Amino acid sequence: MTVKVGVLGARGRVGSVMAQAVRDAEDLELVAEVDHDDDLQVLVDNGAEVVIDFTVPDAVMGNLEFCVTHGIHAVVGTTGFTAERVEKVRSWCEANPATGVLIAPNFAVSAVLTMAFARQAARFFDSAEVVEFHHPNKLDAPSGTAVHTAEGIAAARREAGMPPAPDATAQALDGARGADVDGVPVHAVRMQGMNAHEEVIFGSQGQTLTIRQDSYDRTSFVPGVLLGVREVAAHPGLTVGLDSYLGL
Amino acid sequence: MTVKVGVLGARGRVGSVMAQAVRDAEDLELVAEVDHDDDLQVLVDNGAEVVIDFTVPDAVMGNLEFCVTHGIHAVVGTTGFTAERVEKVRSWCEANPATGVLIAPNFAVSAVLTMAFARQAARFFDSAEVVEFHHPNKLDAPSGTAVHTAEGIAAARREAGMPPAPDATAQALDGARGADVDGVPVHAVRMQGMNAHEEVIFGSQGQTLTIRQDSYDRTSFVPGVLLGVREVAAHPGLTVGLDSYLGL
Amino acid sequence: MTVKVGVLGARGRVGSVMAQAVRDAEDLELVAEVDHDDDLQVLVDNGAEVVIDFTVPDAVMGNLEFCVTHGIHAVVGTTGFTAERVEKVRSWCEANPATGVLIAPNFAVSAVLTMAFARQAARFFDSAEVVEFHHPNKLDAPSGTAVHTAEGIAAARREAGMPPAPDATAQALDGARGADVDGVPVHAVRMQGMNAHEEVIFGSQGQTLTIRQDSYDRTSFVPGVLLGVREVAAHPGLTVGLDSYLGL
Amino acid sequence: MTVKVGVLGARGRVGSVMAQAVRDAEDLELVAEVDHDDDLQVLVDNGAEVVIDFTVPDAVMGNLEFCVTHGIHAVVGTTGFTAERVEKVRSWCEANPATGVLIAPNFAVSAVLTMAFARQAARFFDSAEVVEFHHPNKLDAPSGTAVHTAEGIAAARREAGMPPAPDATAQALDGARGADVDGVPVHAVRMQGMNAHEEVIFGSQGQTLTIRQDSYDRTSFVPGVLLGVREVAAHPGLTVGLDSYLGL
Repeated sequence: MTVKVGVLGARGRVGSVMAQAVRDAEDLELVAEVDHDDDLQVLVDNGAEVVIDFTVPDAVMGNLEFCVTHGIHAVVGTTGFTAERVEKVRSWCEANPATGVLIAPNFAVSAVLTMAFARQAARFFDSAEVVEFHHPNKLDAPSGTAVHTAEGIAAARREAGMPPAPDATAQALDGARGADVDGVPVHAVRMQGMNAHEEVIFGSQGQTLTIRQDSYDRTSFVPGVLLGVREVAAHPGLTVGLDSYLGL
Repeated sequence: MTVKVGVLGARGRVGSVMAQAVRDAEDLELVAEVDHDDDLQVLVDNGAEVVIDFTVPDAVMGNLEFCVTHGIHAVVGTTGFTAERVEKVRSWCEANPATGVLIAPNFAVSAVLTMAFARQAARFFDSAEVVEFHHPNKLDAPSGTAVHTAEGIAAARREAGMPPAPDATAQALDGARGADVDGVPVHAVRMQGMNAHEEVIFGSQGQTLTIRQDSYDRTSFVPGVLLGVREVAAHPGLTVGLDSYLGL
Repeated sequence: MTVKVGVLGARGRVGSVMAQAVRDAEDLELVAEVDHDDDLQVLVDNGAEVVIDFTVPDAVMGNLEFCVTHGIHAVVGTTGFTAERVEKVRSWCEANPATGVLIAPNFAVSAVLTMAFARQAARFFDSAEVVEFHHPNKLDAPSGTAVHTAEGIAAARREAGMPPAPDATAQALDGARGADVDGVPVHAVRMQGMNAHEEVIFGSQGQTLTIRQDSYDRTSFVPGVLLGVREVAAHPGLTVGLDSYLGL
Repeated sequence: MTVKVGVLGARGRVGSVMAQAVRDAEDLELVAEVDHDDDLQVLVDNGAEVVIDFTVPDAVMGNLEFCVTHGIHAVVGTTGFTAERVEKVRSWCEANPATGVLIAPNFAVSAVLTMAFARQAARFFDSAEVVEFHHPNKLDAPSGTAVHTAEGIAAARREAGMPPAPDATAQALDGARGADVDGVPVHAVRMQGMNAHEEVIFGSQGQTLTIRQDSYDRTSFVPGVLLGVREVAAHPGLTVGLDSYLGL
């Protein structure tokens, strides 16, 4: 038995990739491709059980209100979810308790696992640093993911009552030791040919542990979205972040 | 307040490193160094609360019976624990329920975490392979740790009902695709200059996750043993494997 | 002053990428796009100084005879060059000594450099192994590039009179130690998400040297072809392999 | 036939390792171990053909004058060679043209090759960055080797008339993009458990090339010194740097 899926933003860059991925999956059936001028009623008419929403902040709230009130589960990668917006979605879900909504800022499973494992590992190692690598067109350094990873490591170290990482550096060129994110050094490499990669390194006596994530191209979110589509019905209510779907 | 620690096998290669590590730790006090001709009574006389046992199979059972019956916790890296021996130790622990014994085949925290994370990650990726790297004096290939890691990945894939990893190889030189451990390819590199290193690689659409562990020298078990010493009193009864001390 | 470039096979998968790359390069001008039904005379009419040929074995010899006899330099990535064909091209070049032809099996500069550096480094290290990583649709294992790399290392070791790499392995699972290419172990990983990657590892006392090449996508041949286009006029006669253009 | 070797500074930390390495080498014979109170005449009396000097700046000039004037070749890892000192040694060599002296700041062959290959590769890639990893007791960041590597890359880029590496970074945390060494970003990681490691990354369209050097322990200079001992007689006169012995 297949799951009937509708794609919102189906002619967008990400949405079109998702529509193709649904078509390619044997256990999923693409029943509706909706873009900005289309009527959402097609979702109901075609029996969509789950929608994938990669649209724009202006559209996503209307989409979600429609889906939740019609009992259609939603997997959402659209950006712009303020705390206020999240609460609004939560209220719709509470009124329709059988429906599941998953909103995630990052659907790359390898990146989500890297952050989760880094938090788990942090308290066992004296040293922890993050090195991220991106294409040279990226505007911010470090990446949001790398900053978030470092913050998670720093929080785990604090909870465990750990002292600062050992570092005898007395003479340094400006910037050599990276950016300081809550005490965790973060280094950003910008490299032609690369896409998005993150490496977390932990060290203690005689050993290191390295967790590395490579996103080779812009389809790396696909497996995470499909995982969401397959499991959202089993997670009624609002879930923020892919983590809890990964059972971590 | 410090923990009073006795080291058994204190003049051995590993034991002497552990004795030094206890001396160097501010929260631990080395109260007894015992080797094969010494009387275990010194542990009681000097008030040892925890012993570290890196001795030999012939000595370890006598040591453990003495320690458990005297209420001294034990952290044990000695090899040779058959199922029968484990049951024997368990019976002593049941008769002395306040005493904790930790027996672990591998105290390298980075290696234990690598195996644990690999099991957690396995079900989210189409492909999984293990590459291990050791000094050229090693007799077996792949290493026991790499085989154990691959078995854990294979078990997690089976539980999740996953198909075999995709592999279109039609023409291969003998050995090119590694050893097959329950369907997971394992590759063993033997390299002058290296010590013991393991890399687990997972792949799905557009992305990979790599978990790598490097043991640079023979002191890499120290942090794990000290972790055991500090936490064994909070884990009464017999524990096999460092995993459960890591809260994974 | 720009170089006038014609692309042969311009509507093919690779040719179309090359046509675009020429358009994007400020110092090059795309003056002709030729595919299988087109007349080569357009190259002369439009003043092409250099052609790029990514066509098929059936077409390439005719293309090259036309170009060389008309004094148009050629950069060729088409496959199927037997020794006999190479000699034929060489005879055309000898009759037109001012014209340059570059035929290369691999235009990925990073891969060509990896092979060249591996040959240079080989004689300084006791151990050498190759690990290659490809997408799981690849039919052969190891890759031709990895085999070629290992052969280069083996030749350099032989010339230096080196003994076999140290390896005490006594108990091994079948395949664990990789494929044996002239005494150099080669390991092939097949991984969803990856494209084409090669790692060469050398080890001696207390140290290793790793040379790694990553081809993230199918455009990785572009910089090498453009390098060829820019320098072919300075290399009259026939050149096989990109190496000599890299000054190695 | 073996080469007769004397070790100066034979009871020092490095000298004692070298003395043992000479004893272990089948083609070398240790004929003299000299330390600061010993008479250099023992070198002549015991027929030393080559000396290894890992002493101190105060001693090395006297040692070299003695050796060169007595026709004993010298392989020197002692620090403190100013331009003036180098000229002094050169003048002694000119007066004794059959004698060879090799003075090198770095005898780790893997590090010397990394720098050499980085210079060779630099002009073929749009982007180049250096990441170095050291134990946390290191006082300076980045390491001298990493700075030297970056300077070599920068020089090669300048000679090739290359523009700055592409980097669209508009918003950055302080230090995120590393230290700027002649336009090449250098990132320094300080990690418990590590010793000394350097990674050079180059990128162009669709590909990267990574050259990585790992020094796992303090014996990593041994192979380079032994190489010097075996080849110094074939390099009469003064040579600074191991490079030219590597035929690069």
